[in-house]
Amino acid sequence: MSTTAGTLNGVDLDTIGELAQQLAGDPEADKSVWSASTTWTGAFTSASHAHEHAPILSDEPKLLAGGGTAPNRVEYLLASLGSCLAVGYAASAAVRGIELRSVELELSGTIDLRVFLGLAEGHAGYERIEVTASVESDADDAALQALHEHVVNTSPVGNTIEHPVELQARLVRR
Amino acid sequence: MSTTAGTLNGVDLDTIGELAQQLAGDPEADKSVWSASTTWTGAFTSASHAHEHAPILSDEPKLLAGGGTAPNRVEYLLASLGSCLAVGYAASAAVRGIELRSVELELSGTIDLRVFLGLAEGHAGYERIEVTASVESDADDAALQALHEHVVNTSPVGNTIEHPVELQARLVRR
Repeated sequence: MSTTAGTLNGVDLDTIGELAQQLAGDPEADKSVWSASTTWTGAFTSASHAHEHAPILSDEPKLLAGGGTAPNRVEYLLASLGSCLAVGYAASAAVRGIELRSVELELSGTIDLRVFLGLAEGHAGYERIEVTASVESDADDAALQALHEHVVNTSPVGNTIEHPVELQARLVRR
Repeated sequence: MSTTAGTLNGVDLDTIGELAQQLAGDPEADKSVWSASTTWTGAFTSASHAHEHAPILSDEPKLLAGGGTAPNRVEYLLASLGSCLAVGYAASAAVRGIELRSVELELSGTIDLRVFLGLAEGHAGYERIEVTASVESDADDAALQALHEHVVNTSPVGNTIEHPVELQARLVRR
């Protein structure tokens, strides 16, 4: 990604600086609320919505009796983590004056399908997720490793996955 | 959703039964590997891929110095949870003989933006996620509540979020 005045990695440093200044002075900056909604659309398909964006379509693969028309939920979870790390790289590298030429993330994890299907007790999700970040940059090894560790440690999705989260799910009849 | 012979909630019960039987007899069913990849596409945008599906595009809102062209990462995380619960409802209700007319999920959580931006120490992600499942069905209250609890307890994305997950992220130079 090229560098123009005040811009690094496509990130406008003035805008980021203003945002940081604004959040530092905002007593409510620790309470930023995010939301999404999901509509079941029959069989194993669903459409989720966030703001005015195009629906996020999901299905299960044919291997799992789905229609195979869209990524499934545990793939979206990995994509959410990968894209969180990507934006973390872009933002933190820009702030540190590190130019990135490319960032690619490969993510994978293992799931016990029997738990979801009620065939076994236990943990139905990922217990471990492996990520490989392939980064192209002229920064030296130490600077790149420090950037990597900072990005992983401050990733909102990464932190949500790494730490236990309280899930409050209530049912209402329509 | 209408019912036809062997199908409930659009879910083919024979296929589900065969899948369960196959997984019950598969010693590797507890090791189902899922993967995704993410390519940083400049500034705060990224494109993630799972199988051959269309790219999962992400951006940050203008409020956070992004382009506002696509959902952001913490929204995808909520969408992933919502769609996981939706497919859980469809599958588990079908197995229990419960017909669903509609399922809608509303999800929200609070994030401390200062941590992501390096302005504060602490947890950068969701510490709590609230979900409201609005379900339309003729099933009685007890059956619907039992279904709800089963769906939440066996959700692969829900379990990943609720429990601590080991994140192994390594850096390689390209």
